Amino acid sequence: MSFNTFGRVFRFTTWGESHGPAIGAVVDGCPPGIALSEGDVQPFLDRRRPGTSRFTTQRQEPDQVRILSGVFEGRTTGTPIALHIDNVDQRSKDYSEVALAYRPGHADYAYDAKYGFRDYRGGGRSSARETASRVAAGAVARAVIPEVTILAWVEAIGGDSIDYAAFDPAEIANNPFFCPDAEAAVRWETMVDDARKAGSSLGAVVACEAIGVPAGWGAPLYAKLDAELAAACMSINAVKGVEIGDGFAAAALTGEQNADPMHPGNDGPIFTANHAGGIAGGIATGQPVTLRVAFKPTSSILTPMPTITRDGAATELRTKGRHDPCVGIRGVPVVEAMVALVLADQKLLHRAQCGGGDR
Amino acid sequence: MSFNTFGRVFRFTTWGESHGPAIGAVVDGCPPGIALSEGDVQPFLDRRRPGTSRFTTQRQEPDQVRILSGVFEGRTTGTPIALHIDNVDQRSKDYSEVALAYRPGHADYAYDAKYGFRDYRGGGRSSARETASRVAAGAVARAVIPEVTILAWVEAIGGDSIDYAAFDPAEIANNPFFCPDAEAAVRWETMVDDARKAGSSLGAVVACEAIGVPAGWGAPLYAKLDAELAAACMSINAVKGVEIGDGFAAAALTGEQNADPMHPGNDGPIFTANHAGGIAGGIATGQPVTLRVAFKPTSSILTPMPTITRDGAATELRTKGRHDPCVGIRGVPVVEAMVALVLADQKLLHRAQCGGGDR
Amino acid sequence: MSFNTFGRVFRFTTWGESHGPAIGAVVDGCPPGIALSEGDVQPFLDRRRPGTSRFTTQRQEPDQVRILSGVFEGRTTGTPIALHIDNVDQRSKDYSEVALAYRPGHADYAYDAKYGFRDYRGGGRSSARETASRVAAGAVARAVIPEVTILAWVEAIGGDSIDYAAFDPAEIANNPFFCPDAEAAVRWETMVDDARKAGSSLGAVVACEAIGVPAGWGAPLYAKLDAELAAACMSINAVKGVEIGDGFAAAALTGEQNADPMHPGNDGPIFTANHAGGIAGGIATGQPVTLRVAFKPTSSILTPMPTITRDGAATELRTKGRHDPCVGIRGVPVVEAMVALVLADQKLLHRAQCGGGDR
Amino acid sequence: MSFNTFGRVFRFTTWGESHGPAIGAVVDGCPPGIALSEGDVQPFLDRRRPGTSRFTTQRQEPDQVRILSGVFEGRTTGTPIALHIDNVDQRSKDYSEVALAYRPGHADYAYDAKYGFRDYRGGGRSSARETASRVAAGAVARAVIPEVTILAWVEAIGGDSIDYAAFDPAEIANNPFFCPDAEAAVRWETMVDDARKAGSSLGAVVACEAIGVPAGWGAPLYAKLDAELAAACMSINAVKGVEIGDGFAAAALTGEQNADPMHPGNDGPIFTANHAGGIAGGIATGQPVTLRVAFKPTSSILTPMPTITRDGAATELRTKGRHDPCVGIRGVPVVEAMVALVLADQKLLHRAQCGGGDR
Repeated sequence: MSFNTFGRVFRFTTWGESHGPAIGAVVDGCPPGIALSEGDVQPFLDRRRPGTSRFTTQRQEPDQVRILSGVFEGRTTGTPIALHIDNVDQRSKDYSEVALAYRPGHADYAYDAKYGFRDYRGGGRSSARETASRVAAGAVARAVIPEVTILAWVEAIGGDSIDYAAFDPAEIANNPFFCPDAEAAVRWETMVDDARKAGSSLGAVVACEAIGVPAGWGAPLYAKLDAELAAACMSINAVKGVEIGDGFAAAALTGEQNADPMHPGNDGPIFTANHAGGIAGGIATGQPVTLRVAFKPTSSILTPMPTITRDGAATELRTKGRHDPCVGIRGVPVVEAMVALVLADQKLLHRAQCGGGDR
Repeated sequence: MSFNTFGRVFRFTTWGESHGPAIGAVVDGCPPGIALSEGDVQPFLDRRRPGTSRFTTQRQEPDQVRILSGVFEGRTTGTPIALHIDNVDQRSKDYSEVALAYRPGHADYAYDAKYGFRDYRGGGRSSARETASRVAAGAVARAVIPEVTILAWVEAIGGDSIDYAAFDPAEIANNPFFCPDAEAAVRWETMVDDARKAGSSLGAVVACEAIGVPAGWGAPLYAKLDAELAAACMSINAVKGVEIGDGFAAAALTGEQNADPMHPGNDGPIFTANHAGGIAGGIATGQPVTLRVAFKPTSSILTPMPTITRDGAATELRTKGRHDPCVGIRGVPVVEAMVALVLADQKLLHRAQCGGGDR
Repeated sequence: MSFNTFGRVFRFTTWGESHGPAIGAVVDGCPPGIALSEGDVQPFLDRRRPGTSRFTTQRQEPDQVRILSGVFEGRTTGTPIALHIDNVDQRSKDYSEVALAYRPGHADYAYDAKYGFRDYRGGGRSSARETASRVAAGAVARAVIPEVTILAWVEAIGGDSIDYAAFDPAEIANNPFFCPDAEAAVRWETMVDDARKAGSSLGAVVACEAIGVPAGWGAPLYAKLDAELAAACMSINAVKGVEIGDGFAAAALTGEQNADPMHPGNDGPIFTANHAGGIAGGIATGQPVTLRVAFKPTSSILTPMPTITRDGAATELRTKGRHDPCVGIRGVPVVEAMVALVLADQKLLHRAQCGGGDR
Repeated sequence: MSFNTFGRVFRFTTWGESHGPAIGAVVDGCPPGIALSEGDVQPFLDRRRPGTSRFTTQRQEPDQVRILSGVFEGRTTGTPIALHIDNVDQRSKDYSEVALAYRPGHADYAYDAKYGFRDYRGGGRSSARETASRVAAGAVARAVIPEVTILAWVEAIGGDSIDYAAFDPAEIANNPFFCPDAEAAVRWETMVDDARKAGSSLGAVVACEAIGVPAGWGAPLYAKLDAELAAACMSINAVKGVEIGDGFAAAALTGEQNADPMHPGNDGPIFTANHAGGIAGGIATGQPVTLRVAFKPTSSILTPMPTITRDGAATELRTKGRHDPCVGIRGVPVVEAMVALVLADQKLLHRAQCGGGDR
């Protein structure tokens, strides 16, 4: 099966291929009466948009979103919200090479193994172009959870990490890397430029924090908040790892080192640490929800790699064409969107079972 | 909501609290005609069973499983399989302390924040005792995927990793740590003993490999094989991170370093590397599916920690009673079970859409 | 697939065969803090219990329910509620005839066609015994919707209908037919007795009314209140038709005849007719929700019927053993349970999207 | 919640309002490799298209469908199929009356009660215009089940039934009523014309038969084939009742009268009756699957009816504008589509659990 819907009660379904006429999402279950217009969605798409710097793919897509349903007189009606984005720059090129042979590291072989057949143009459905639909849906999700602030950034590229002592959220919008450390951004400029010119690529780590998630959101046991976040982020193209709070580092700690002590506070408990990343037993504790996401380097590289043809013969392939030298960079708005989508769903789930704030 | 069901078409639902009369699982969607008896399930429960060495909790539970439905004359009928495990050793103790104050790092506070109320006996529903139900269900899943071999082990405890040069799968059953490196097992004996005696605890990393997963299993885009594995593992108690293949390490690589070249083979392509962990675009490639799971140290420690009471007053709590000094150890059969459950589901999903092997 | 779970956010899963050791249900998503004990469930099971008059099967089942999880100190905790009913009177008989040949009108042939194999003892999973689990789950659902009163009754047996002029709800509990018309009950006694003695069986129509359903419950478009009710009732054994409001009679009316005019009222609009059965556009209007359910005559009859063996040979079969001469009678508590289960689900769904009463 | 998705593994999601810019559906889970083009979908939309005779609404919609994704080189790829239909004839009219008062029998009041707010233009989301999306999706479903032939027709209008002795399937396409009895079609012409001129409306019964459904399709217990058909049909606008096989008539029969005897046949059993409508225990028996669906008369009538305003004041409303005098007529292609959608889902479900024909 090909489950292209995510969410339990606040759900979205995406459709579309990289080189089809359009892509889009249908958001279902959105509460009624929420102010929403294309102007609320477009800024998020603009953040993710390709072709805005030399550090991303040069494909030129305006990514203009249209809302085709579910909004009336500026407010959501409670019916499905159809978000539509035309594909504009599907460059007419010769795909015969990709059609006949499998690009290593790409989904080409796996799609053929599954479906016996694939839309090879620009990766078809497996292209990261699909994430534009997620970002559009995520903008709707944000409108559902005004109590929450979500912020993501690139923490490391090619193993070179930011210095958290220099962390400045205002800096994130000041460079093409979503980098909160101005010095690191300078270093990355050189690194990514070098990779780009060499036809190589780099991996990255994206970090994300959601502030304002009320204690109690989360749906144990198999829709735990952390499990849903893990699924949401792992479903993003090129992601190979997800951590909540201290993640793998916690596995090297003792119970004393990993403790998050609680103290009385006026507005819920005050925690003096947050190793847990704001989630215990799959339920939010009221602390910031923190996570980290590992993006592998873009598989498309100019170095020829051994591979096989559809007929099973040996060949070599170097992936020409437009691509991101570091796909993790544009992962930042996508991670934010997925976190928003999970939280909107969990908010409504919590309200269903526990009656929301009016218990 | 409290979604206690996992899976799309091969689904299981678990129920039960740590100190209730019993726990169990209902497995729905199992294909008919598969040989199954309690004898096929019990060995997996025995591997996870508490109280078998001094390195796990001393609670004595026989974990005898009964199959109450869905099997007739030794074969599955295609109807729900009810798996029932009586709780035997719910030690009658004084819970007044835990009832009134929140154990730091536990789900106590979050459950109260969500439900306004909780079964505080032994952690209630948030207890790792629930994982016995998963292991039982996982045994059914294994019967659905005889083509796949799943093996997990502890890779590191408290930051001390095995040496993969010394990896010996036969060793895993020879020590109480599911450790494939005999020398590491000796070191861990001291480490875990020390932690236990000090009333402390240690984190751990569990690694898992599934061999024989056919190329093509996986359900893009929001039930990708890796996304489902991430959700399945993150839903296990104490898990804080999941990696597929190289995971976070891939984020520090270049595209050339991370490539998995393909060569012609008699039985599908031969890959000369497996950085991707056997999954591309959310679909299995036919290589071994590899993952790593981070377990935090058990939150229950004897060192008093600041916390608050249900009424919001400051207090201190040291968690007495029986617990695992390293909860990751018994995570090994649970990770295996969750991987089996995901793969059984994906097998049936693939058959639904693509007709299985008979395309 | 064999989907043994019903519901979207208030969900239940049933398991068990007619002649297995036990049957049961797991109710998931129940709000926390609701008073619930076995004493709240047992009376509903007692109403459905077999063997209480000569007009139902003579199988003697005490149907004692046990709550194995999800309730603590007399209140629901928000975690899954496991309901367990032991089978006691699985009469040890010779099933060789049923094992080898298909009873006409029963699910025997269809189960074999689907699964290649079946538990033939007492109909196995296809037996109406499963409806005891529904009734138990329905009792939990009722506790979730205290604002709603649900009442069902038998409207007709073998084509002989009650006289609604003589409708007396108090009468329903006064006879073994759930009949609200005392005179009809007398007639039915003879009719059902005759059928029973002749080894024949009779069909029946069950009517149901739910009062107090708030305007606004209902989830358009594919979980419309009426669509969910239709699915819920059609899933009951022997049901062949479902009507909402005037149902098929409405198809013979004009728009003027079928109109439900609205007038101002102090507490919502006053409707001067209810042809619609309290549902418009799939959403409750605040009027009583009314439905009718058609039960076919029990397929088990003593008259020999031509059929085939598992090997495809011609044979004849008369269905001996214990059975209900009119399965629709005991359908009354089952229909009530299914209506309660749908409404509890819709209440929580409405609260999820629209915030319940606090909009 | 507003669940606008139907199906378990072959799923479709619809979106769009009567007077929005477009409507559409996303079909997910379609098997790959199936020949599909817009030319396969358009004929079904043309059958349902409004404005083609004086017996349907005069709204002129070309209902040209575009496939925006999921098809490549003339074959389905296994990824979501986006079907897009532009709204063309959203007549710009004065909606102030409908905006302020509730049309009796329509969903106006219920939508306001649920959402606090509604798109009142042409009924918004509650309009039968949405069924165009279903018909488009249904055309895809048909391509998935080539072994099945689905045929629906109008059996009665305003209580006047066809004569089954005169049943001629070829006649169905020969009149604007989908009527298989040429004489009845003549009578209905007068009846519907009279109703139309009087500003009145008529109810109708639609019957449907699916031939070629293999024995074994069906997913007990809560996705039984008949339960899914009931939900699917009851979700159609104006439907108030659904029957499988003999339906309510079976409730007046004895077991002997209702029996479907089986005899040996070369290609499965031969049944000498089909009271059950081809379904036993929720599973297809291989006989024709038969159902009947009751459509109420269109609620829009010219006779003024008492109603209330949004502010709760008394008023009267006569529903002007374009509408179908008998909404059941155009229900024929919609019923066929819903049956096709259920069967495609059940086919894949059966394949998932039981491996399809290759068991």
